[in-house]
Amino acid sequence: MFYSDEMSSFSLGVDYGTNSVRALIVRCKDGAEFGASVYQYPSGNQGVLLDSKDPYLARQYPGDYLLGLEKSVRGALAQAGARRGFSASEIVGIGVDTTGSSPLPVNERNVPLALSGKFRKNLAAQCWLWKDHTSWQEAEWITGKAVEHRPAYIAKCGNKYSSEWFWSKIWRCLNVAPRVFEAAYSWVEFADWIPSILAGVRDPLLIQRGICAAGHKAMYSEEWGGLPDAEFLKLLHPELAALRSRLYAKAYDATEPAGHLCPEWAKKLGLSAGIPIAIGELDVHYGAIGSGIAPEALVKVIGTSTCDCAVVAASNKVADIPGICGIVPGAILPGYYGIEAGQSAVGDIFKWWIEKICGGDETLYAVLERKAKKLHPGESGLLALDWNNGNRTILVDPMLTGLLLGTTLHTTQAEVYRALIEATAFGARTIIERIEEYGVPIRRIVCAGGITLKSPLLMQIYADVTGRVMQVAGSSQACALGSAISAAVLAGAHKDFPTAQAAMTSLKSKEYTPIPVNQRIYNELYVLYRRLHDTFGGKEAADVSQVMKQLLKLSIGNH
Amino acid sequence: MFYSDEMSSFSLGVDYGTNSVRALIVRCKDGAEFGASVYQYPSGNQGVLLDSKDPYLARQYPGDYLLGLEKSVRGALAQAGARRGFSASEIVGIGVDTTGSSPLPVNERNVPLALSGKFRKNLAAQCWLWKDHTSWQEAEWITGKAVEHRPAYIAKCGNKYSSEWFWSKIWRCLNVAPRVFEAAYSWVEFADWIPSILAGVRDPLLIQRGICAAGHKAMYSEEWGGLPDAEFLKLLHPELAALRSRLYAKAYDATEPAGHLCPEWAKKLGLSAGIPIAIGELDVHYGAIGSGIAPEALVKVIGTSTCDCAVVAASNKVADIPGICGIVPGAILPGYYGIEAGQSAVGDIFKWWIEKICGGDETLYAVLERKAKKLHPGESGLLALDWNNGNRTILVDPMLTGLLLGTTLHTTQAEVYRALIEATAFGARTIIERIEEYGVPIRRIVCAGGITLKSPLLMQIYADVTGRVMQVAGSSQACALGSAISAAVLAGAHKDFPTAQAAMTSLKSKEYTPIPVNQRIYNELYVLYRRLHDTFGGKEAADVSQVMKQLLKLSIGNH
Repeated sequence: MFYSDEMSSFSLGVDYGTNSVRALIVRCKDGAEFGASVYQYPSGNQGVLLDSKDPYLARQYPGDYLLGLEKSVRGALAQAGARRGFSASEIVGIGVDTTGSSPLPVNERNVPLALSGKFRKNLAAQCWLWKDHTSWQEAEWITGKAVEHRPAYIAKCGNKYSSEWFWSKIWRCLNVAPRVFEAAYSWVEFADWIPSILAGVRDPLLIQRGICAAGHKAMYSEEWGGLPDAEFLKLLHPELAALRSRLYAKAYDATEPAGHLCPEWAKKLGLSAGIPIAIGELDVHYGAIGSGIAPEALVKVIGTSTCDCAVVAASNKVADIPGICGIVPGAILPGYYGIEAGQSAVGDIFKWWIEKICGGDETLYAVLERKAKKLHPGESGLLALDWNNGNRTILVDPMLTGLLLGTTLHTTQAEVYRALIEATAFGARTIIERIEEYGVPIRRIVCAGGITLKSPLLMQIYADVTGRVMQVAGSSQACALGSAISAAVLAGAHKDFPTAQAAMTSLKSKEYTPIPVNQRIYNELYVLYRRLHDTFGGKEAADVSQVMKQLLKLSIGNH
Repeated sequence: MFYSDEMSSFSLGVDYGTNSVRALIVRCKDGAEFGASVYQYPSGNQGVLLDSKDPYLARQYPGDYLLGLEKSVRGALAQAGARRGFSASEIVGIGVDTTGSSPLPVNERNVPLALSGKFRKNLAAQCWLWKDHTSWQEAEWITGKAVEHRPAYIAKCGNKYSSEWFWSKIWRCLNVAPRVFEAAYSWVEFADWIPSILAGVRDPLLIQRGICAAGHKAMYSEEWGGLPDAEFLKLLHPELAALRSRLYAKAYDATEPAGHLCPEWAKKLGLSAGIPIAIGELDVHYGAIGSGIAPEALVKVIGTSTCDCAVVAASNKVADIPGICGIVPGAILPGYYGIEAGQSAVGDIFKWWIEKICGGDETLYAVLERKAKKLHPGESGLLALDWNNGNRTILVDPMLTGLLLGTTLHTTQAEVYRALIEATAFGARTIIERIEEYGVPIRRIVCAGGITLKSPLLMQIYADVTGRVMQVAGSSQACALGSAISAAVLAGAHKDFPTAQAAMTSLKSKEYTPIPVNQRIYNELYVLYRRLHDTFGGKEAADVSQVMKQLLKLSIGNH
């Protein structure tokens, strides 16, 4: 099959986010969007199962994923069907991306335990959502054991294993819900499980697992023969060592298919059976592809959290970068090292402030955006740490929390809103500086995600704080587009990823250029941010005794 | 005149707060309230003139004071007049208390410059309200010069002269509004000016000034012959040295009258001309008297800010206490040293949070109070510094600002509300510990002010954090009552203050006792609070790197 001259082939991308799933149908030739549909997960709080006694817990009901798959794809097809030149039979492949690391326990038939009657309501039997931090203690233990016994493993993870990742979560399950652990035949990443369902895989051992989640979240590397060796896992817990053989021996990059659409799901979705299904990847990795990732570019996918992606040609040598979550060959683009970093809460922080604290709704977002835009950098005298959901990069510490400093009796909602945006911008700068410090140059920054369009203020602040031009991905659905691109390449609609990206992705014409006067003030504020960051981050105590006064002086100077 | 057997004599107390003035008519025999009336100042924002460009500025229009005097007294008289056994002619004296240090510039006829056409709208010509912090720079300079040249002066002020005080403000006026300074013949404390107006004093040099504001705010002490000597003032500015002779040579305690009611104001108010007017004192000092201040008791007047008062018999020796704003003989009770400390914002912080940030109104206070009450100490994982209006005691630094640490994406309005109450409680504990450390025992704590009745939660937290029983003053109008007591003593209705206090003040039956389990948790939190306090206060850097983690552990432990 080679579709490059076939002008009417289409590709389907399915993007599973934290609160909803989105299906997108694009034309392979040019990436034109023919149909899109979003389905909100019905369970829990906006799709997330919570525990009022434990703010760290975040789970999801896998049944929502299946229902959402059908609803979103059917919705997108209905929309595309109304357009000339489209037919569902011309969809040549399916790509899927999801949040992660979001592992779920399954039985021997690849059925999630949560879909069986016995464990239906058991929180430990659900999908352990990426932002679940209940396993912070296990993460610390894994880090400790790895530092001592397998330094190579942990160096690849930025020297700290995260509570958000695969092994921490599974071990946590073993510790707090041993009956669930025992009932689980295997554990599957959400990103691998959806393609396996589409492909009709009934045995967890036959699932084609993606290198992306494996390498970034499960300490998988061909350097040491795949997953962490059994001896090391035994140091953690014998049951984890025993689980190893029921996981996977090899993980694949996007040149390999996850499988082909099985008749059952072809019928459910109204698509042709047998079309290829791309290997599952983490949402942001396909998002990076959909945003035009290439060497020397950094793609920032800004949503509830932010994920930063960069790629380096596999022919180059890349050093381990302390505090950067992972450097994995083939994780994003085949033939390249994928580098991933991130911030655990971005949009989520603004949402918390506006909805939970200020008690506002959508209209308050617009009001605060407008008011905050009128403020000068430094004017409010505020400085915040963006750690309301812990710090992922470069401190890799889920036990850190948010901080707001410099409040007076006059501090307004809009001033804090702006300070929170600035805090995420300072966090972004810290990541960029760390990556460059270790020899990976960043010459372009492309931002994707809804916030890039909803908040021009955020985009300008990011430009001013980082001192770099911020470009915006042309598609507002970069993750789904990236999934669709992967499927299009797999189906042969394009000869390789760079060719497919050139044809199917674009940039918005509007880009954000640093304003020198703002940059100067933000450079001063960044020094103060780093003092708080380093002091409270436990890295290196800085002198913070004058921070309040320096902020006040900046505030008075910039009124 | 000796009225002790005269069962129908009454006394009038007039209490000028930050947003309103209150008149209170009480029976001398037993303190029974016969009439009360409150008048809200009409100018500015709830009576305070602000400058949107400078959050430190807070002024008041003196015309509001005069109008409010008439309105509130007339209102109280109308109410009392409806009761049997009352006649305005039986009011035997008037006492006045005000905020301070709140100096205002007057001309040679004792008329405020702000009441003349020329300066009517000039912010520098208004009364410089206690909480105006525009003169922080001048305060630093005064501290510097005093440390170098007059260490005795500054030791008496707790080793730091405040931007809230007399000389800082006047010097600031000279620096930023020299025309106003030049037009001012003299400067008068608000607390001295109202009695002088009632007494018909037309020459600023004839005003009887109170020792209370003089000693606590203007570096007045008989040890060095009154106000700071001219040579020292010249080191600040020659114009300040020149002003010295147009201020006052001697200040008086409450055994001396400020004067007697002049016919003009007797007519305006409907009172008998010639009745004695007590010396003006700062609101909290008369509030302390109205709350039953006595040796070994600490009176906390909790309002927008908190003021702490203690007295020590003049026969004892009292050491200077670092960071305590002043120790002044006769300042509160004649025959005793008055010790004053305070917190720059208390009620104001809650108001800021609930109204300005959460966008709520009176009903939200009740909601948050109810929700916050359900939380356990430590449960929220939050820790705050109560410095939204700077720190008065023990850091004496208006350039400090508020801090909130430990926020997550789940942090609620009520959790922050409770954390802010706790922050003020930790601040209160810091003051108590400092006073005791320097040899002044505190065996009882009496709280006064509206919050003591409105927030049982706050009272319980104060008991739990300080580990002491919190008593509540019987009168909800302790300041006005204290003024009335001073007038009653002056008029001879009681032979001295202790006798008058025994007859006219009381305690509520409800008192708050520490709950041991809460105390234990708060002792742990207080250690963390002090680390932040000392680090950001610039006193002594503590290790704060683990504060977030320790809070989280306390949070998980106390859910």
